[in-house]
Amino acid sequence: MTGIDDLPIRDELRGKSPYGAPQLDVPVRLNTNENPYPLPAELVDRITERVREAARDLNRYPDRDAVELRTELAKYLTRTAGHEVGLANVWAANGSNEVIQQLLQTFGGPGRTAIGFEPSYSMHGLISRGTGTGWIAGPRREDFTIDVAAAERIIAERRPNVVFVTSPNNPTGTAVAADTVVALYEAAQAARPSLVVVDEAYGEFSHRPSLLPLIEGRPNMVVSRTMSKAFGAAGLRLGYLAADPAVVDAVQLVRLPYHLSAVTQATALAALEHTDTLLGYVEQLKTERDRLVGELRAIGCEVTDSDANFVQFGRFEDSHRAWQAILDRGVLVRDNGVPGWLRVTAGTPAENDAFLEAVRELKKEQ
Amino acid sequence: MTGIDDLPIRDELRGKSPYGAPQLDVPVRLNTNENPYPLPAELVDRITERVREAARDLNRYPDRDAVELRTELAKYLTRTAGHEVGLANVWAANGSNEVIQQLLQTFGGPGRTAIGFEPSYSMHGLISRGTGTGWIAGPRREDFTIDVAAAERIIAERRPNVVFVTSPNNPTGTAVAADTVVALYEAAQAARPSLVVVDEAYGEFSHRPSLLPLIEGRPNMVVSRTMSKAFGAAGLRLGYLAADPAVVDAVQLVRLPYHLSAVTQATALAALEHTDTLLGYVEQLKTERDRLVGELRAIGCEVTDSDANFVQFGRFEDSHRAWQAILDRGVLVRDNGVPGWLRVTAGTPAENDAFLEAVRELKKEQ
Repeated sequence: MTGIDDLPIRDELRGKSPYGAPQLDVPVRLNTNENPYPLPAELVDRITERVREAARDLNRYPDRDAVELRTELAKYLTRTAGHEVGLANVWAANGSNEVIQQLLQTFGGPGRTAIGFEPSYSMHGLISRGTGTGWIAGPRREDFTIDVAAAERIIAERRPNVVFVTSPNNPTGTAVAADTVVALYEAAQAARPSLVVVDEAYGEFSHRPSLLPLIEGRPNMVVSRTMSKAFGAAGLRLGYLAADPAVVDAVQLVRLPYHLSAVTQATALAALEHTDTLLGYVEQLKTERDRLVGELRAIGCEVTDSDANFVQFGRFEDSHRAWQAILDRGVLVRDNGVPGWLRVTAGTPAENDAFLEAVRELKKEQ
Repeated sequence: MTGIDDLPIRDELRGKSPYGAPQLDVPVRLNTNENPYPLPAELVDRITERVREAARDLNRYPDRDAVELRTELAKYLTRTAGHEVGLANVWAANGSNEVIQQLLQTFGGPGRTAIGFEPSYSMHGLISRGTGTGWIAGPRREDFTIDVAAAERIIAERRPNVVFVTSPNNPTGTAVAADTVVALYEAAQAARPSLVVVDEAYGEFSHRPSLLPLIEGRPNMVVSRTMSKAFGAAGLRLGYLAADPAVVDAVQLVRLPYHLSAVTQATALAALEHTDTLLGYVEQLKTERDRLVGELRAIGCEVTDSDANFVQFGRFEDSHRAWQAILDRGVLVRDNGVPGWLRVTAGTPAENDAFLEAVRELKKEQ
């Protein structure tokens, strides 16, 4: 039988494993930061209607520029993120992963480098590798915040072409202050003209306002977003960015033509019609997230401040063993490989209760 | 105002334009090889049902491995392409463009090269560029067939890592004989271990059987397909490949996790339930395609033999001017930049009549 290593794949892929959390069938799944609330029935109806319309013309290619969708995303950002943007500022793709891939194909790639401050969203490094971009692992403080002086030093020294700042950060949960992002942007531009990507996948859950207003007057800054979390639509795969219109023009040079299907565009438009309902769920999740933080601390766990729909908690001498012990109680959380720490997604109140009970039992045994 | 050139984009992207045919609003659009037949009402209903089911769980990530969809695609290939394949042989992505991008990220990329025999599907070269893969423009004969001896020479000389063979070829229309593909595969393997990608986007329209059986015993051969043409689903963006299971394992290393949305998977599964109806349209289109070839020749045009749902016709002293003259008569065809030639998609009988009338008038004027 032929194996991967018998094929003429790229050397740097040899021995690697595909990215992805274990998909296990357990009662309570709190491991991939999904929104626990199914879409409301009215929205399911509206998706059905919109997709029916789109299916009638499915023999034709979709709108290559996704004009209606980008216009509605721009309205949503303008209304909720404290800065006015329009069609020309917004670009959409199949998940924020594809947005990031397009940015790296345009601004990174062979002979170039990208930096992120780890631990952070591991796909930044993996997509860098997939696009031939060198990856630089930048540092964080013990408390997982970004040490601006240390970050400035490494940026000056390594002169990356792309800088990732994840806010709220994943898997640690804390949002980044605007002045930190400005300092990193200035350090990056001083080193060389470079793109700064602010990944706000969890932006809607934050105690802090969106960093979107920072794109004003900063043509090399991009804010990326997703409908997977706040819109409860992980299954839809719809990510988007907001930036100077020149950035949107630039990614056209690498985007695959007609990358965004007519059914994806129709479904996303239906969801955007129900923004207020969905943001209501976000408020419930923020309350539950804050409850998780409080109760975990009461149990005696250390917890990183969270602005997201998940909470990093610890510390465990053996975090993988703790992960297994929680799983044995029917609750799947995430071991992101941060020594001593685990990550739990804020679920429904009942799911969170089950999780907290599992951690209580675990603590008693220790 | 910031322009693309003010941004720190990759040097090789500077001055380039995005790929894409003009999207013009004219009565008869025969320029992008779309299937002219809208999906039948029963299929639209079935899509609606399937998407409704999927929308109920849209807060969860889709099946990352698209197991049900790949299983059904494998059954379809087994039934129609003369070779038995299963789940492990098949991989799917957002359009065959994404399939090709994943293959190039795995088997091409920085420091590696890919070859195609031009004129051919121009995205092979463009996605090569987008993935940092060097592009080699291989030759064709005057009649647009592949000169095997010349191809073997350039493969031996340049030792590409990826070889593209498009059958039926786009934009010229002719299918490639199996022994030609075997000869190219052997030449490629003799030069170095390398991947041979047979792009069968238009395979269902061919007079020749599929080249799928050639993957047997050839672990470095891939056949790529799409639902855009034969399934009348350009708006769906569903491409797939069949190959040795090791190839499917290998692309997992670069695929974006959860790249294929739940609505895309649901819609594609609905379409696969209606395969027989859709293949009935393919038969109608093949009849119309053959009529176009016959009538264009009767009018005095040169026509390349076509195994696709489009026809390359000429020759014109100034093909762009001929394109404009046909457009002035309300019919949009494609100028693929092959000097002297244009390409027309087989449309409905009425659309093809309008096109033929436009060419007749043009010929009278010359």
